[in-house]
Amino acid sequence: MAQTQPYGIVIHGGAGYITPDRYSPEEIEAFESKLSEALNAGYSILENNGTSEEAVIAAIKILEDSPLFNAGKGSVLNHDGHVEMDASIMRGNDLKAGAVASITQIKNPILAAQAVMNKSHHVMLCGIGADEFGKTMGLTIEKPAYFITEDKKQALNKALESERTELDHGHGQVSPKSQDYKYGTVGAVALDKNGNLCAGTSTGGMTNKRHNRVGDSPIIGAGTYANNETCAISCTGHGEYFIRLSVAHEINSLMKYEGLSLEEAANQVVQIELKDMGGDGGLIGIDSDGNITTSFNTSGMFRGFRTNKLEAKILIFK
Amino acid sequence: MAQTQPYGIVIHGGAGYITPDRYSPEEIEAFESKLSEALNAGYSILENNGTSEEAVIAAIKILEDSPLFNAGKGSVLNHDGHVEMDASIMRGNDLKAGAVASITQIKNPILAAQAVMNKSHHVMLCGIGADEFGKTMGLTIEKPAYFITEDKKQALNKALESERTELDHGHGQVSPKSQDYKYGTVGAVALDKNGNLCAGTSTGGMTNKRHNRVGDSPIIGAGTYANNETCAISCTGHGEYFIRLSVAHEINSLMKYEGLSLEEAANQVVQIELKDMGGDGGLIGIDSDGNITTSFNTSGMFRGFRTNKLEAKILIFK
Repeated sequence: MAQTQPYGIVIHGGAGYITPDRYSPEEIEAFESKLSEALNAGYSILENNGTSEEAVIAAIKILEDSPLFNAGKGSVLNHDGHVEMDASIMRGNDLKAGAVASITQIKNPILAAQAVMNKSHHVMLCGIGADEFGKTMGLTIEKPAYFITEDKKQALNKALESERTELDHGHGQVSPKSQDYKYGTVGAVALDKNGNLCAGTSTGGMTNKRHNRVGDSPIIGAGTYANNETCAISCTGHGEYFIRLSVAHEINSLMKYEGLSLEEAANQVVQIELKDMGGDGGLIGIDSDGNITTSFNTSGMFRGFRTNKLEAKILIFK
Repeated sequence: MAQTQPYGIVIHGGAGYITPDRYSPEEIEAFESKLSEALNAGYSILENNGTSEEAVIAAIKILEDSPLFNAGKGSVLNHDGHVEMDASIMRGNDLKAGAVASITQIKNPILAAQAVMNKSHHVMLCGIGADEFGKTMGLTIEKPAYFITEDKKQALNKALESERTELDHGHGQVSPKSQDYKYGTVGAVALDKNGNLCAGTSTGGMTNKRHNRVGDSPIIGAGTYANNETCAISCTGHGEYFIRLSVAHEINSLMKYEGLSLEEAANQVVQIELKDMGGDGGLIGIDSDGNITTSFNTSGMFRGFRTNKLEAKILIFK
């Protein structure tokens, strides 16, 4: 009897101090419903012999278009009250990758990252040049007002207030931890029926971040990595720590050189290396055999997965 | 008899199609003399009990200030005729890192990267926000004319001409390889008497690059990486390939998990992994025992090294 080629998809909508008391049943339902929509869109592409790249793009696009998550519409605001978005994508079969950082006009940052990967000689573009490139590629543009939502305005005001309070109390420096309770980055990783892996990540970054701060989401090897030999990874969390540990590439190394399983590698990095350093967050992964992981050291992570062996599941809390 | 704590520094001024016939004896001498100056500045700091961070900064600052190299003054021009600079630095003892991408005004990009590391909560800033941060930190600003040199203008004109030629001949896409014969990025890695490693890289990127293209130099884990457990690495070459392979972090992984020496790890990545993919370039490294490497798959790399066991040496060709 022929073995079925494994396939599947894992998505996330960010990790953080996500506890049941923070949300009403209606809010929980809204999150679950949007995550389901993204998961099903990606999975049905895989089921119908589509590529992992197509599945990742479809899932992330839905999460970017929803104001519920910190990516595309509904991105958090920087210190100056503006939206600046980062995204990246990587294919595991040819190690091709694309990334954009600090873009402000492209409706779907993940499509800009994909265009950099497929239609330029470059891997990463930032700022105005990245927005210009997206326009040249015919991607949909939106005005600033499209991206900004009322709850993200309030989040910035709260962060600015607590910054003032912290400064008043003479700590001198403001701890970024106090400014955000969740890192609502979105991401997807997929394995298709041809055995090809793909990973993608998209984010508005951190509330009250400095103008043009770049987190781990657009950094290949930190927030996103895919290699058919090992796995596809998308991260969410306090990006600075993920960059310093090259988290996504470190998972690849632990699998390739130490022979760890995806789950073991993810837990070692998220629960030990990151935690020891003080880095909050989590990641999702899928390996070339269709095994998956959703590992986080925060109280919750919006996540969902479905493979040819695992039924669809949406989870939020621990 | 007490063992002397090893210490030392390695610098580079870029790899590429650097062959003796391209340079006059006077030009060779100018390159050698500037590389010596940078090497000696860094080494004397280490000798006098300074930190590896201080040594790396001192060496890179001298190379940035020289019009001979593609970093700071003398950076190459992008497609639109502007200078856009990237830099990063990482410390091996605490894995703290800082990076700037696409800056246009700060005289010494490596100082901007250092300020991000030491004086912000972030690891990476790009574009206008990074320039603004540098100004706030009191770093020296220069007008565009300061950075632009006649030979880099000519290099852009040549690249634009060959681009037109290639397009005329109907290839559709322009191969970036034909546009530059050397990647004049600069970098330094050092080990100090306290056993602490540091790595730094600074560049103007690639001639004729697209507006706001970001290469590997400001990407922690790609162009720059340092970890006291293993090594400090600074890369130079066709940055897109270095990002896709997470080159600097891959050297760390091969040493940490495969038990390879620095030299073996560097050769495996530069001579096999990068070469198989078509990625030109090289890297410099120093490990926690003071062993060094200068590995490249191009015809030359501007480089120099000195440790408490190895006499000062400046090399350009194979």
